[in-house]
Amino acid sequence: MTNRKIPVAILGATGTVGQKLIRLLDGHPWFEVAAFTASAASAGKRYGDVVRWREAAPLPAWAADRTVLASTDPQAFPLVFSALDTEPARTIEPLWAGTGAVVVTNASPFRMEPDVPLVIPEINADHIGLIPAQRAARGWSGAVVANPNCTTTGLVLALAPLHRAFGVERLFVSTMQAVSGAGWPGVASLDITGNVIPYIAHEEEKVERETAKILGTLDGSAIRPAPVVVSAHTNRVPVIDGHTETVSVGFARRVTPKDVAAALRDWRAASDVAGLPSSPEYPVLVEDRPDRPQPRLDIDRGRGMSAVVGRIRTCPILDIRFVVLSHNTVRGAAGTTIQNAELLVARGVVPR
Amino acid sequence: MTNRKIPVAILGATGTVGQKLIRLLDGHPWFEVAAFTASAASAGKRYGDVVRWREAAPLPAWAADRTVLASTDPQAFPLVFSALDTEPARTIEPLWAGTGAVVVTNASPFRMEPDVPLVIPEINADHIGLIPAQRAARGWSGAVVANPNCTTTGLVLALAPLHRAFGVERLFVSTMQAVSGAGWPGVASLDITGNVIPYIAHEEEKVERETAKILGTLDGSAIRPAPVVVSAHTNRVPVIDGHTETVSVGFARRVTPKDVAAALRDWRAASDVAGLPSSPEYPVLVEDRPDRPQPRLDIDRGRGMSAVVGRIRTCPILDIRFVVLSHNTVRGAAGTTIQNAELLVARGVVPR
Amino acid sequence: MTNRKIPVAILGATGTVGQKLIRLLDGHPWFEVAAFTASAASAGKRYGDVVRWREAAPLPAWAADRTVLASTDPQAFPLVFSALDTEPARTIEPLWAGTGAVVVTNASPFRMEPDVPLVIPEINADHIGLIPAQRAARGWSGAVVANPNCTTTGLVLALAPLHRAFGVERLFVSTMQAVSGAGWPGVASLDITGNVIPYIAHEEEKVERETAKILGTLDGSAIRPAPVVVSAHTNRVPVIDGHTETVSVGFARRVTPKDVAAALRDWRAASDVAGLPSSPEYPVLVEDRPDRPQPRLDIDRGRGMSAVVGRIRTCPILDIRFVVLSHNTVRGAAGTTIQNAELLVARGVVPR
Amino acid sequence: MTNRKIPVAILGATGTVGQKLIRLLDGHPWFEVAAFTASAASAGKRYGDVVRWREAAPLPAWAADRTVLASTDPQAFPLVFSALDTEPARTIEPLWAGTGAVVVTNASPFRMEPDVPLVIPEINADHIGLIPAQRAARGWSGAVVANPNCTTTGLVLALAPLHRAFGVERLFVSTMQAVSGAGWPGVASLDITGNVIPYIAHEEEKVERETAKILGTLDGSAIRPAPVVVSAHTNRVPVIDGHTETVSVGFARRVTPKDVAAALRDWRAASDVAGLPSSPEYPVLVEDRPDRPQPRLDIDRGRGMSAVVGRIRTCPILDIRFVVLSHNTVRGAAGTTIQNAELLVARGVVPR
Repeated sequence: MTNRKIPVAILGATGTVGQKLIRLLDGHPWFEVAAFTASAASAGKRYGDVVRWREAAPLPAWAADRTVLASTDPQAFPLVFSALDTEPARTIEPLWAGTGAVVVTNASPFRMEPDVPLVIPEINADHIGLIPAQRAARGWSGAVVANPNCTTTGLVLALAPLHRAFGVERLFVSTMQAVSGAGWPGVASLDITGNVIPYIAHEEEKVERETAKILGTLDGSAIRPAPVVVSAHTNRVPVIDGHTETVSVGFARRVTPKDVAAALRDWRAASDVAGLPSSPEYPVLVEDRPDRPQPRLDIDRGRGMSAVVGRIRTCPILDIRFVVLSHNTVRGAAGTTIQNAELLVARGVVPR
Repeated sequence: MTNRKIPVAILGATGTVGQKLIRLLDGHPWFEVAAFTASAASAGKRYGDVVRWREAAPLPAWAADRTVLASTDPQAFPLVFSALDTEPARTIEPLWAGTGAVVVTNASPFRMEPDVPLVIPEINADHIGLIPAQRAARGWSGAVVANPNCTTTGLVLALAPLHRAFGVERLFVSTMQAVSGAGWPGVASLDITGNVIPYIAHEEEKVERETAKILGTLDGSAIRPAPVVVSAHTNRVPVIDGHTETVSVGFARRVTPKDVAAALRDWRAASDVAGLPSSPEYPVLVEDRPDRPQPRLDIDRGRGMSAVVGRIRTCPILDIRFVVLSHNTVRGAAGTTIQNAELLVARGVVPR
Repeated sequence: MTNRKIPVAILGATGTVGQKLIRLLDGHPWFEVAAFTASAASAGKRYGDVVRWREAAPLPAWAADRTVLASTDPQAFPLVFSALDTEPARTIEPLWAGTGAVVVTNASPFRMEPDVPLVIPEINADHIGLIPAQRAARGWSGAVVANPNCTTTGLVLALAPLHRAFGVERLFVSTMQAVSGAGWPGVASLDITGNVIPYIAHEEEKVERETAKILGTLDGSAIRPAPVVVSAHTNRVPVIDGHTETVSVGFARRVTPKDVAAALRDWRAASDVAGLPSSPEYPVLVEDRPDRPQPRLDIDRGRGMSAVVGRIRTCPILDIRFVVLSHNTVRGAAGTTIQNAELLVARGVVPR
Repeated sequence: MTNRKIPVAILGATGTVGQKLIRLLDGHPWFEVAAFTASAASAGKRYGDVVRWREAAPLPAWAADRTVLASTDPQAFPLVFSALDTEPARTIEPLWAGTGAVVVTNASPFRMEPDVPLVIPEINADHIGLIPAQRAARGWSGAVVANPNCTTTGLVLALAPLHRAFGVERLFVSTMQAVSGAGWPGVASLDITGNVIPYIAHEEEKVERETAKILGTLDGSAIRPAPVVVSAHTNRVPVIDGHTETVSVGFARRVTPKDVAAALRDWRAASDVAGLPSSPEYPVLVEDRPDRPQPRLDIDRGRGMSAVVGRIRTCPILDIRFVVLSHNTVRGAAGTTIQNAELLVARGVVPR
């Protein structure tokens, strides 16, 4: 890598994921944010004037002064971060990919497309091997690489080393999800203060399907999904950041809680992945304290990039039960989007 | 029933369950609270001076002026309500039962004793048939009749009609429990504000064991537990009242969500139970709205005595998934304690 | 009053205030809801299909089945309740008043108009004497009568008897306001969970100006505002219902906390006002417990229509300090709107 | 300063303030924690085994392994940090001061003693000039130096530069205080979830008296309190960290919001104080955004050591109104305790 940073654009830069991307990219060793896009209504204005900045860290001066471009007007960038909402992403991301940009996206429309890699670098970096087929099929000079839904992300971080070691066959997951997962304004305070909402539209389907794809194997130019059956119950709770998930897992062979704890503790990413700027030292941390993990105390571990697993114990029905927590807007969104971009640079898909 | 009300005593009257008993017994058609007990430190004092009254409804004048007795000094009452904490209950309830009182208790120590009925009247009123054996074994002229843990209560209300109709074989339950379940002071606000605590000591064991007993059958002088395997994950969330539980159930035979909804909707208690003053019109209400039940909106349905079930749908692993909500301090504690007392009167165990 | 109820319409019936009006008017002894209005998009549809019902009490069947009318299409009703938002209210309420309806409104645009009564019946029922002048000036056969902002309401309920007895000259008020005051979706949970927002747009001005008008005196065909100087600090806190306000008051003459407590306790409405169906027995309740009032425990006192005052003590700068709590969507909105309608019937402005 | 760090002890090291001291002293450039004390019950045990560690940052290994001493058994240390509770502090701090330790304390019993400096270094560092008189009067070879109550701290940080520039004469303050201010377990979640408690025992008196002392002037061997009259209303809200205070101030001369903003922005500590390791770059930050400061977004500014002032505007009764926020357990407790210790080293009271 030369000293010159790679210029990147952020699509949909005014929303909560866009803001998190800006904060996490502030001072990034490899990337330099050269352009922001937003809706046509904001195009041509100063970013600091159109964003309702909600990060606790102040809006960086370099970002405040930048002029916003229209998302629908693709520019020549080798790498683009997409924080677009679902519907705009469906049409806008292809425009940029067609113009030559590798679009790393947090948006959902392409996640389950057979030719789109759905990647968490520690787990399935090799899925970027889909890109040539994607380019061939779609006639893009760029590409789209997605990261999973925030709830899926915490879950598969805990599952991946267990799947490799013991073969995950089926699992229940019941979630307690933070309101930041719905963006801003998102969930009305009148609905969630002192309350639980036991429903998040489309969330259970996403968790059930994305899990099998991420744990799947690259087979030529397609992903063979892992034969894992998932039953998800997704719930919203009055927490700002951090999705907590209770999980019961059935494995292909008999395992003990000790086996599971060891597999989680011993798990390390491939060495090039481990060396990415956004990769945490430990993808999963294991807690022995009986009342952990908790969002308020554990959410920032590994700079928000480590999932934390606790309460590993046997399950009377399947084999093993545990709790997993992950930071839904860092590891579950902007953090992994950036880490995916780093992976694509490290593996030569995006030229330095 | 004559016009004369049955005089009752409340053991442990200063705690949150004791306060709820007083509020629910205020104006009760059958019972008149004639005595309160508390720890020796409070004995001899005016109730209004020792209680830290936390109900929104004002402390009734008749209660405020009553002199508190010592819990350890049993008096002659035919019926006694126990809101004692676990450890005091273990030694004090037998004192009163030995003196001739039928002790209806919310405390946990005797729940799993083979000769103690663990009762929710709509479900297993016949389990009070254990009382003769209990009296014989323990030499008590009175008796102890318990109601279940608050988390078990909501769960078994949903399961009971399904078990009768389809045979429940195994189930997962993951809970989001209100802080009132821990009493006062209970959970520190520093621990739970904007947070989730994925652990409640001993709670999972209680749910797993009590469920099988309540759904079990009276067989001579013993309960044959139902062969139901339960895997529970219990969690605390920042909600004041109302335990929300996500449940996946496997049945002995194939059932559809429609079957389940119908079985829940059609369920009625035996007619003498349905006529008890504290019995709700419907033990279970079924919700069709996709985001219900919710603690804030649904907790007081059936005056806090109806469990509310929603999101009935198929489960990819077991057969059916749903959400159940119940009021943990009414249906899950004081309300069922009183209803049990009513049952014992209606069925002649306590003389009118 | 004959047995026949007065048919009324509710303007803006789908919002949170409209819903509260429906719940409070369900079974009302004098009024029968005969029509609902909403935006053109909802007109012609079934109310149950367009409302996102958020009250804990179920949507009454009579309301669910009613066809929604367009707010902009005035019908012949003697009495209309307006729960319109500010901007629509500005143009729509005159349409209905012009058609002959007496519009009792919770909306703000006309509150400070010199010819519009701003009324809390216990305090300034005589201000409805402005109506003839209003009709003359505006050429309406109907009229508009407003109730104050929710924050003003709790404050003036505590001030009114003190002003009469001792002469309020100036006061500080710092508020902790519930999220329901902002309607739905209102305040984003991402903004207020575990947080305080020390700003509510236009709220301080409303409190400062409305207070002087309500405490003012009807002088011929105009209100002479009370010479009361108000300094308001308004804040949002994560509470669902109930505005808590800390107040320091300077009087025209020296008073003790005892004087203030007595004046508040002794205050009763004029007898015809006291007899209105929505009037509470006590407009203000006084609390002696040092940590009261609190939203969670005291909000429903007097069926949500009594303000609760506590912590009455001397102030080192002005004369007296206290805390006042009132239910912002009942007393501070729909409840007083209905009570104003009752007043207008009782005093013959609306014919029975 | 040589390279050798000063060995210090922490009294009352297991509570929440003790834990915060440990976290803030971890890696401190001047101090090395050489001993921990706690109650007799914990003495002799490993710190990691007796503390219920509640900081999000992990318990440092050096701290976990240390053996706890009894607080009542003073050791020879030049400098001691006290996080003791009020009652133990009253008797234990003199023991240590008598043994030669300079005790910097967050506890309240000695704050208002005429010979005890009550210090925030940016404001009244010169008050440490009381120490010789204190030593003479009490026969101590050490000393006690206190920092103020957490609520006073945020308030006086905003007031100090204004008092210097314009002369503060009187003020109203109404607070919205975080639950961490009450320590652990502190406020019960059942009391504060979705609620406001408009009362904190003894808090208003502390704010009113401490403010005058801190803003006072050292006059020989005594502090002449500033002639500032304070009227405080203190309230608890469901926030974890961060006290928000609304303030109206009357000055000795006419000032504009602009004057106030400039005085706050321009305020800098004396240069030796500004150079202390714990001193923030700006003791007060001024916000122009209308809805700021907010606990969730602004609490960590200046590493938790900067107070943030916003909404500076005129007051209809006194002169100026504003909102001030400060971190109650950093700036309002452990952070200032440490900064006071640094001051005492910098000014030679504690030898390096």
